[in-house]
Amino acid sequence: MINSAFSTVTADQAAPLHQEFTQVRKDSETLCAPLEIEDYGIQTIPDVSPPKWHLAHTSWFFETFLLKPFLKHYQEFDEHYAHLFNSYYEQIGTYHPRPERGLLSRPTVKQVYAYRQHVDAAMLVLLAQETLPDYPEIVRRCIIGLHHEQQHQELLLTDIKHIFSYNPLRPVYRELPISNINHTAELSWHEQPGGMYEIGADAAGQFAYDNETPRHKIYLSSFRIASRLVTNGEYLEFMHAGGYYNPAYWLSDGWKIVQTQHWQAPLYWVKQDMQWYEMTLGGVRKLDVHAPVSHVSLYEAHAYANWCNKRLPKEAEWEIVARQQPITGNLRDAGYLQPMPADLQGLAQFYGDVWEWTQSSYSPYPGYRADSGALGEYNSKFMSSQGVLRGGSCVTPQNHIRATYRNFFYPGDRWQFSGIRLAEDIT
Amino acid sequence: MINSAFSTVTADQAAPLHQEFTQVRKDSETLCAPLEIEDYGIQTIPDVSPPKWHLAHTSWFFETFLLKPFLKHYQEFDEHYAHLFNSYYEQIGTYHPRPERGLLSRPTVKQVYAYRQHVDAAMLVLLAQETLPDYPEIVRRCIIGLHHEQQHQELLLTDIKHIFSYNPLRPVYRELPISNINHTAELSWHEQPGGMYEIGADAAGQFAYDNETPRHKIYLSSFRIASRLVTNGEYLEFMHAGGYYNPAYWLSDGWKIVQTQHWQAPLYWVKQDMQWYEMTLGGVRKLDVHAPVSHVSLYEAHAYANWCNKRLPKEAEWEIVARQQPITGNLRDAGYLQPMPADLQGLAQFYGDVWEWTQSSYSPYPGYRADSGALGEYNSKFMSSQGVLRGGSCVTPQNHIRATYRNFFYPGDRWQFSGIRLAEDIT
Amino acid sequence: MINSAFSTVTADQAAPLHQEFTQVRKDSETLCAPLEIEDYGIQTIPDVSPPKWHLAHTSWFFETFLLKPFLKHYQEFDEHYAHLFNSYYEQIGTYHPRPERGLLSRPTVKQVYAYRQHVDAAMLVLLAQETLPDYPEIVRRCIIGLHHEQQHQELLLTDIKHIFSYNPLRPVYRELPISNINHTAELSWHEQPGGMYEIGADAAGQFAYDNETPRHKIYLSSFRIASRLVTNGEYLEFMHAGGYYNPAYWLSDGWKIVQTQHWQAPLYWVKQDMQWYEMTLGGVRKLDVHAPVSHVSLYEAHAYANWCNKRLPKEAEWEIVARQQPITGNLRDAGYLQPMPADLQGLAQFYGDVWEWTQSSYSPYPGYRADSGALGEYNSKFMSSQGVLRGGSCVTPQNHIRATYRNFFYPGDRWQFSGIRLAEDIT
Amino acid sequence: MINSAFSTVTADQAAPLHQEFTQVRKDSETLCAPLEIEDYGIQTIPDVSPPKWHLAHTSWFFETFLLKPFLKHYQEFDEHYAHLFNSYYEQIGTYHPRPERGLLSRPTVKQVYAYRQHVDAAMLVLLAQETLPDYPEIVRRCIIGLHHEQQHQELLLTDIKHIFSYNPLRPVYRELPISNINHTAELSWHEQPGGMYEIGADAAGQFAYDNETPRHKIYLSSFRIASRLVTNGEYLEFMHAGGYYNPAYWLSDGWKIVQTQHWQAPLYWVKQDMQWYEMTLGGVRKLDVHAPVSHVSLYEAHAYANWCNKRLPKEAEWEIVARQQPITGNLRDAGYLQPMPADLQGLAQFYGDVWEWTQSSYSPYPGYRADSGALGEYNSKFMSSQGVLRGGSCVTPQNHIRATYRNFFYPGDRWQFSGIRLAEDIT
Ligand SMILES: [Fe+3]
Ligand SMILES: [Fe+3]
Ligand SMILES: [Fe+3]
Ligand SMILES: [Fe+3]
Repeated sequence: MINSAFSTVTADQAAPLHQEFTQVRKDSETLCAPLEIEDYGIQTIPDVSPPKWHLAHTSWFFETFLLKPFLKHYQEFDEHYAHLFNSYYEQIGTYHPRPERGLLSRPTVKQVYAYRQHVDAAMLVLLAQETLPDYPEIVRRCIIGLHHEQQHQELLLTDIKHIFSYNPLRPVYRELPISNINHTAELSWHEQPGGMYEIGADAAGQFAYDNETPRHKIYLSSFRIASRLVTNGEYLEFMHAGGYYNPAYWLSDGWKIVQTQHWQAPLYWVKQDMQWYEMTLGGVRKLDVHAPVSHVSLYEAHAYANWCNKRLPKEAEWEIVARQQPITGNLRDAGYLQPMPADLQGLAQFYGDVWEWTQSSYSPYPGYRADSGALGEYNSKFMSSQGVLRGGSCVTPQNHIRATYRNFFYPGDRWQFSGIRLAEDIT
Repeated sequence: MINSAFSTVTADQAAPLHQEFTQVRKDSETLCAPLEIEDYGIQTIPDVSPPKWHLAHTSWFFETFLLKPFLKHYQEFDEHYAHLFNSYYEQIGTYHPRPERGLLSRPTVKQVYAYRQHVDAAMLVLLAQETLPDYPEIVRRCIIGLHHEQQHQELLLTDIKHIFSYNPLRPVYRELPISNINHTAELSWHEQPGGMYEIGADAAGQFAYDNETPRHKIYLSSFRIASRLVTNGEYLEFMHAGGYYNPAYWLSDGWKIVQTQHWQAPLYWVKQDMQWYEMTLGGVRKLDVHAPVSHVSLYEAHAYANWCNKRLPKEAEWEIVARQQPITGNLRDAGYLQPMPADLQGLAQFYGDVWEWTQSSYSPYPGYRADSGALGEYNSKFMSSQGVLRGGSCVTPQNHIRATYRNFFYPGDRWQFSGIRLAEDIT
Repeated sequence: MINSAFSTVTADQAAPLHQEFTQVRKDSETLCAPLEIEDYGIQTIPDVSPPKWHLAHTSWFFETFLLKPFLKHYQEFDEHYAHLFNSYYEQIGTYHPRPERGLLSRPTVKQVYAYRQHVDAAMLVLLAQETLPDYPEIVRRCIIGLHHEQQHQELLLTDIKHIFSYNPLRPVYRELPISNINHTAELSWHEQPGGMYEIGADAAGQFAYDNETPRHKIYLSSFRIASRLVTNGEYLEFMHAGGYYNPAYWLSDGWKIVQTQHWQAPLYWVKQDMQWYEMTLGGVRKLDVHAPVSHVSLYEAHAYANWCNKRLPKEAEWEIVARQQPITGNLRDAGYLQPMPADLQGLAQFYGDVWEWTQSSYSPYPGYRADSGALGEYNSKFMSSQGVLRGGSCVTPQNHIRATYRNFFYPGDRWQFSGIRLAEDIT
Repeated sequence: MINSAFSTVTADQAAPLHQEFTQVRKDSETLCAPLEIEDYGIQTIPDVSPPKWHLAHTSWFFETFLLKPFLKHYQEFDEHYAHLFNSYYEQIGTYHPRPERGLLSRPTVKQVYAYRQHVDAAMLVLLAQETLPDYPEIVRRCIIGLHHEQQHQELLLTDIKHIFSYNPLRPVYRELPISNINHTAELSWHEQPGGMYEIGADAAGQFAYDNETPRHKIYLSSFRIASRLVTNGEYLEFMHAGGYYNPAYWLSDGWKIVQTQHWQAPLYWVKQDMQWYEMTLGGVRKLDVHAPVSHVSLYEAHAYANWCNKRLPKEAEWEIVARQQPITGNLRDAGYLQPMPADLQGLAQFYGDVWEWTQSSYSPYPGYRADSGALGEYNSKFMSSQGVLRGGSCVTPQNHIRATYRNFFYPGDRWQFSGIRLAEDIT
């Protein structure tokens, strides 16, 4: 069995798969409910995709990897979509240049929703064909497609935030609840003894992407990890100490960006009348000093840690501590869509709030094999120059995150909900 | 009297001004009728503005130069619009960066139409106040505003064409009539004797922009000018002769663009199955070899003329011949929205079809004075590095063009309906 | 006779041609005498060429246009030089990319001087062959080659200045005399009545480039022109009045450069301890407020004139006044290599000191025909987007300048000795 | 003792330190002996520094970290050099922008050699002051300075190669011996069992950079590593199989470069008359198909390995195999300055020939602490987005390389002698 990473769902589990399919697909549309038609088409920077594109691309995924190969007599919705909504799968065919996704007024939003309906109907037909010899592969791919769609749901929210942030009218995505926690739990340090550990996802367990496999042994020296995330208030101290003006704390590549992009604060922070505010999906708010700092790059996370004489955790360190915690937290389902303060002592905030930058570069695990065919491009071809982030954020669906999950972005990226947890060696 | 260029309309003529106002304002909206909401927001290149932006900016013009200074108790529609829809008037205040006009999903199309209604209603109130001491200035500015709006109507069409051309789905703006002319009138040469002439607009005459004034004397050597425009078929001969591969015909700056942008044909030409097609507002059509070549840059026009051992006309040469012709032709009102073949012998196509590149750089006439205040920025600050084009195009409103009209674009620009008329010295 | 512009030297005049040839060629080397070997190879910006390149390219000109076509059995010095030292003549063959002229350590300076010797020896042989049927053409081209070399002599000095200005060690080209004039002659205005004039070079007269021909009629309205150049002191007033911070004075393209390049003063001005200094070929000096402002772009010249409610002269206006003046002034032969104050009343500084920006775009005269073949590329292919400058500068050889001479640079160029003379309409 | 990595040399060992100092310093100059003065100043790309700059910067290192802090009454050679020859040490002060190192004609080569003499003389005085309380630190820093100089000696050769490669005259650095090996040793696979290992440099052992410390435990799964490097001939097979045209083998970032930079072969390969040649320091040679492929990026190394169904080794895997081999091979001292074929069976080419790309990102070892102060910037601030290379190359000094040595470059870099050794998992 080659593609073990993606093959853990068996036919038994598929019983409610059509329900899960329907739910996940509907979730994407629900997320877009607050949007005006005009919001669906904007691409502010190449990293950001128009909401309309996310809705179509996730449908293209099912059409390409399931309907076309497995559903007899399937009628393609529009022959141009293969090109328009392929993101980057070279082995599938050509694709529209990423930086030009925002230049397409057509298909219209209405047509994209019709495309979704068309794909959904066909998918339900396909999922009902349980006697097909390929049914296990169909189930396997369908599950990948649903996780894929959930990833894009997170991107929908981070991209909408970015799109709105470019608009001087300061649009609000949705009225959001605000934290009533007026303090930050004291920071404590969890000690983890050195020794042999195992990390990564088990081929026989729950769903995982190929990049989380195989589960493998690793030796770790003893270390300490912070009980909670770094707060806005703590990050402000770094700023007041001249953090953005002292190259001694910074990685060389990071310092270049600080100077050329004139970084002086996390993304979305705005100073007005000597007071810091931040843009959120609920509009511009006074900065909550108790909440975790968010929208910082790996460079900023590294510089902050350096300034504290600490470091960022390795991804393995994070994983062996995090997996002892229940998968709960301020995830998308909590409805805040904004990081929240930790109010209780002890290990906290491992899941949700913000993706936590690690000092690990995104690279293959020992024995890693990419999924076969075009699906192998999903994760493996990005294993250079990116950093690993762990734990999900306040816009990650609860049932999408797990201890072994590896997210990855370039060290200068800031438009995700990305923050900082400190660690240090025990010597 | 300082701003003579803009002051030719007297209070008498203002009688039907509110009617003209209503008509011109309505024309802009009629032009947008075929659009989907999604089409209103796209900006493909910095030169192109989203249709929504044109609709709002032309309203901002009336609000800024008329309603705010002259209408008592006028209530601004939205305080942010002063920034969002100022195009480039430095003396008015800040403005949204031009290349980022396509990143604004808000205001929505609906809100922009509401803005237009708001401005229109107020303008009609203002235009009714004929006893105001400032009324002559109000009339003068209103007329400028209407000509301004007509210019943007032309841009609406050229920009929509460009927006649609970037979309692999090849959207069609409107079904358009097609020429039934299957030949090209034979090219003849009009001889004009050298001598003293006068060109430019008369302060006491019909409306003209400040850059057309003052009317002034000029000495011209004798010359010949082509009876009609260069056709697609003739331009194809240049291409077949290797025109895009031989630097000897090209201006140095043009040749650099040919090489870096890989120009091999006019903009909007597409080769499929060994056959040339062109994108039009009516969709992709087989290239009409009898129709005038369009969407060429000044560099291409110059290279073509060089290849023929001819040259482009000076703007003065064009004007003294063109003003003897009636202002008729394939203008917007004809409804083709695409250049059409010349079918009759003799001087033809001076107005409409395509803007005609001249060899004249855009510069001030002797004695030129820009309008005072911010309105002076309208034309005068662009007098460097641009070429003058004359005669209007198939998307220019009939009552907007005149013999003295000076349009100007950078020598590399191609997204306007711009073409070629040849000239030569008589020696 | 086709190439009239370049054909004015007859065989008679050729008698001392070999002497002139020897002198001009030696001048180039004399100019380089103060250089270290290391100075010969630097290219700070694409506009600037390494001194070594100038020395070789001017030799290539003679080799290419004279020795190869006309000298029997001529042995090319090095077959690679045809590519390396062709500047931009497309019809001759390929050429090394201009921005990479500074990446060539070989040929060495010594080899380049050997190349010069080789070419010089062969040229003297060729010039002695007066009985050749092509001798008139040889003479004609040789004279062009000498003027060409003189142009590059001017560039040698402006480029060395630029090269040294990039070096924090502030190298000095040569100790230079300093003005002892402690005042500026009062500015007066010369009035010129409107009417028919003739400008341009006569085919039968002294040498002129093709772009100065043909002599032709032109009608000019009456105007006033300033008796002398704008001084550093006067330009400082513009700066103190916020000239670099007020877009109202600027052409749109210029204002963009002011903002993106952060222009706040002419090139080579340096502020130290609240005092203005300027880099010169003689080292850093206190700014001479009486001397003409130099190293300003057309945009700055235009903005300054605008601020004064004046304008720049047209090139024709300049010419008809300047040709009444003797061709004397602070030219290269004066040895200052820096603009000097005007000390006497009356029309002054038309020749030398600084090239004077005009408001005329560089374009062909009526009836202009470029020289035939590759030599036609010398001037004609640059006739777009550039401005005309007149009168020569303090680094122009005395016998190189004339009233009809048209120099041309892009409106943003500042590394030439370029300054401002004001004009205005008489209305 | 804080900076253990750099502190392993004791005062005893320092006895011959002045001799070693003199030798290493002389080596740099010997390497430059074949250069013309003009060669010393060229910078072809920002990565490449002019030879003159290397000579001065390595002297600046001693002046800055030894002479200024420790030698009483030391007279700085030139106060500007602190700025000009600081490479990137932010904590020391400002530095000349890296991409502009090639714009400095001064100081001259002669002055730079005088600078070296000045520093050398003072260093010998300092090294003789063995009774100074700071003497151990002086020794420690001097040793770092010598290793630093050796690193720049390698760069001198790689940069000269690049500089010459940009010159159409194809300069030759030195006549070089050519291999007489006409075959390639057969490739075999070394199996290494999984288990606990230790890697990194011991604080108590021989000299190592801080980034090689601390020695630490690591768990490795069992793997195979290739006995020798990939050859040009083998790489040609990849090319013939369409390697540069098939995105399936490539990392996403690498494929972008392949397309935008039009990579079709390793750097320095040239195709002439259907035959491959390569530029070497000894001139252009026919490609040696038996020699190791060189001047490939990490992207190309990865794509090649992917095409073979192999992978690159981790740096730890490489180290535990390589340290069992004697430190001999085709290093600089062998005099080939070009990779040579492996002629004997068995493990070979671990040291010398080419730096071997690993799949490991450059990151801190567990427990790593950067050296204190500005010297801490030497290695630590580059720990993002770079890949680790191991084993030295044909231009690395023999006594500079060791099994624990970690070199690092960006994945797209190709101007170093960098090649490929394959590995694979044992499953
Ligand atoms: Fe996707
Ligand atoms: Fe406008
Ligand atoms: Fe030249
Ligand atoms: Fe260094």
